[in-house]
Amino acid sequence: MDVTSAGGGGQIGRVVDAIRQRIAARALPADAKLPSIRAFARTLDVSTSTVAEAYERLVAEGVIRSRPGSGFYVTRAPQPLSLAAVGPRLERAVDPLWVSRQSLEGGTEVLKPGCGWLPADWMPAEEMRRALRQLSRTEAAVLTDYGTPLGHLPLRQLLSARLVEEGVMALPEQVLLTESGTQAIDMLCRLLLEPGDTVLVDDPCYFNFLALLRAHRVKVIGIPRMPTGPDLAAFSAALTEHAPRLYITNCGLHNPTGATLSLATAHRVLALSEEARLTIVEDDIFCDFCPEPSTRLAALDGLDRVIQIGSFSKTLTAAARCGYIAARSDWIERLTDLKIASSFGGNPISAALIYALLRDGSYRRHLNGLRERLSRARGEVGAKLKALGIRPWIEPGGGIFLWCALPEGLDAAEVARLALEQDVVLAPGNVFSASQSARSFMRFNVAQCREPKVFGVLRGAMAQARRSGTPRHGEAGVSA
Amino acid sequence: MDVTSAGGGGQIGRVVDAIRQRIAARALPADAKLPSIRAFARTLDVSTSTVAEAYERLVAEGVIRSRPGSGFYVTRAPQPLSLAAVGPRLERAVDPLWVSRQSLEGGTEVLKPGCGWLPADWMPAEEMRRALRQLSRTEAAVLTDYGTPLGHLPLRQLLSARLVEEGVMALPEQVLLTESGTQAIDMLCRLLLEPGDTVLVDDPCYFNFLALLRAHRVKVIGIPRMPTGPDLAAFSAALTEHAPRLYITNCGLHNPTGATLSLATAHRVLALSEEARLTIVEDDIFCDFCPEPSTRLAALDGLDRVIQIGSFSKTLTAAARCGYIAARSDWIERLTDLKIASSFGGNPISAALIYALLRDGSYRRHLNGLRERLSRARGEVGAKLKALGIRPWIEPGGGIFLWCALPEGLDAAEVARLALEQDVVLAPGNVFSASQSARSFMRFNVAQCREPKVFGVLRGAMAQARRSGTPRHGEAGVSA
Repeated sequence: MDVTSAGGGGQIGRVVDAIRQRIAARALPADAKLPSIRAFARTLDVSTSTVAEAYERLVAEGVIRSRPGSGFYVTRAPQPLSLAAVGPRLERAVDPLWVSRQSLEGGTEVLKPGCGWLPADWMPAEEMRRALRQLSRTEAAVLTDYGTPLGHLPLRQLLSARLVEEGVMALPEQVLLTESGTQAIDMLCRLLLEPGDTVLVDDPCYFNFLALLRAHRVKVIGIPRMPTGPDLAAFSAALTEHAPRLYITNCGLHNPTGATLSLATAHRVLALSEEARLTIVEDDIFCDFCPEPSTRLAALDGLDRVIQIGSFSKTLTAAARCGYIAARSDWIERLTDLKIASSFGGNPISAALIYALLRDGSYRRHLNGLRERLSRARGEVGAKLKALGIRPWIEPGGGIFLWCALPEGLDAAEVARLALEQDVVLAPGNVFSASQSARSFMRFNVAQCREPKVFGVLRGAMAQARRSGTPRHGEAGVSA
Repeated sequence: MDVTSAGGGGQIGRVVDAIRQRIAARALPADAKLPSIRAFARTLDVSTSTVAEAYERLVAEGVIRSRPGSGFYVTRAPQPLSLAAVGPRLERAVDPLWVSRQSLEGGTEVLKPGCGWLPADWMPAEEMRRALRQLSRTEAAVLTDYGTPLGHLPLRQLLSARLVEEGVMALPEQVLLTESGTQAIDMLCRLLLEPGDTVLVDDPCYFNFLALLRAHRVKVIGIPRMPTGPDLAAFSAALTEHAPRLYITNCGLHNPTGATLSLATAHRVLALSEEARLTIVEDDIFCDFCPEPSTRLAALDGLDRVIQIGSFSKTLTAAARCGYIAARSDWIERLTDLKIASSFGGNPISAALIYALLRDGSYRRHLNGLRERLSRARGEVGAKLKALGIRPWIEPGGGIFLWCALPEGLDAAEVARLALEQDVVLAPGNVFSASQSARSFMRFNVAQCREPKVFGVLRGAMAQARRSGTPRHGEAGVSA
């Protein structure tokens, strides 16, 4: 526990805050015994009277209680879980939850080259309007009744056909609709994980994986992401060292790098996972941005130890959300119970809208246009970034992201902080990095870089960060 | 562990199944040590060779492994959580998940007097059509962008105004939109509970509370529900004996009984909860069925230790779902992080549809019509049930349910099982009862009883159950 980084005023206040944080992160659950005053004072390198006063204050607040002759214990007062307190304490600028909130909360005056979705005018709004009008003419039961446990059958049939076309042999009964891709991963974590388990992710990875895994209070190990897939030596070593239960990854197009998976790496990942009895969740939400079919673990594995999830929030609409899980039948059965218990009937209107959008040829046409437009944008934005000394890590074959290295010596978090003061939300590398090793990287969403202001603010923030020298708060990761 | 109730063929098969069930319920987590062969054989009253063979079989399957000289341990092979295996093992007819699936999966040929929602033709389908058409004309960003973390502001403002009118002083910033009422409760359980905690519910209570609490692997204690609220002596005793962390209840109209809460009982519940530092979740989804304002814990308490949740799945549409949580600001803050981590952007289309339906006077008119129609239906269905010897426990002042006692000696689960063979889904009392003490009760949804077939099948099933004498499988609860 690091008492120097917690706020609260004075040494006693800092000890109080440090204990409160550990309670909010459930590291000290109800009825847990606190360290003795003497031992804790030694650990924190403060005086015993400081710890004694901190404990007194927490007793007065009802957070802990004293049992004479036995010590101090956490009370059973309500101690709501705080995700912000779980895991290592990070600077705000590289905290996944804080970055998500900036992106989701920012109004229209805010530019968001750091966000993970397309601007509204790149999305098929006219098709949405048509789907809404169509739906307004459908039978009453569809508009007002609960959905079936697995979800809208026509959509599941369509998804099954899509999956089979991609080589993933999933019957409609093996496809469970969820309220979003995020909720699909969350449900799988509930199905497969216990607090304290270890989970592998790519390093870097989609930052909300890191936030979601905090909610499950598991240990997260980042495996360095190479242009062809995870670093196999690190992957193999992590299997031996950490006995992880799950590996969560994107393959179709990797977020944030835009890389794909080579067939050789995919084979090796599956062979190693087989040996270690590791389950894999393959998040395929960016696959439709791929100009040509890329390697999928689920296709190679035949949905044995790989579970595929997807959604259309990136390509169709993020306003009527609908995700899916394709998995082994026995797991779908258990997931269905979990879905009923935690959300009862799903959201049939969203499923019907997505179905209407997917079933005719307009989705294919929309995607073709989108891929072309994105290809141009990747070229243009890449050139503008290079002119600022910002170098793409690879030239992705598809997708909306460029994962870039900033010029030598610049701290991406500092640049992001300065840009935010001018209403530009950037995505600094360490927000994607479980190991906090991507300090000089930044993810750019090429579709959100059309305003010249983006590059002006970026240039200014970089210059200012360079002038202010080394980052203000030292290394980004501050262990808690 | 009860090996007699598990299937699987032969004594060895039963031991194997019993262990598998405990692993699926996470009662035996990864790396847990199994009892010694000798001790387990004694516990199960089987021979040591039976246990030894069962262990061998599980080793061969990779479910457990042997460490020479140390014993048998659960492996780290994927062991997905099975809600069906959590908690006491119940007959299918009184298992909350099974009853939910019957209700949600049954096609139009199935009659559902046991379900918890109105028939499609009682719901405002024309208003939904209008709202969909309106939405098809709105700006593109609303149709395709992610929602803000708290959710659609106009809807939160409207909900805040409604709450304030009911005496619950919740600002719009204290209202968080969720994907459904069920998801709202699930999020609160994630915020407030740890596996092993104790939760109080009413006995009887809404059966999906029991399913949901299995997913959180907590201990559930049922407090007998009286016509004026929970039995105060039992409530008080449970606080002392079990130190529960949460009480989940409906007040506006209680499901399944249709009872309301008296002011005196509400005061006492709050005073006792204050003393015991108990947090209360008040699920208010049936409140709009109430002809006049009824007592709400959240109004008395001022959202200090009470959290209110609600949704419009019962009164407007269950197809475009949207729930809400009204709570203290500091809890809303933590819930918002949890929402981002587990579902990212919510479902803005659903929120916009619900807002469109609520904002003009048509919702009020729809409710007025609904309440009258329900009042007539309660009278008519009550009379038909009494003619069969089925007696309502109280005459509710509002709502869709009649909670009824069957004639002496009849087992509601048996009657439900027989009725299901004729495509009529009933809701036997024990599906609502944590203590399995409502064997002779049944919940009727008066709006789903219009088909004369319901009463014909009910009469026939009761006659058949009476002929077959005592229930086939003894008491419903079979401890696992």
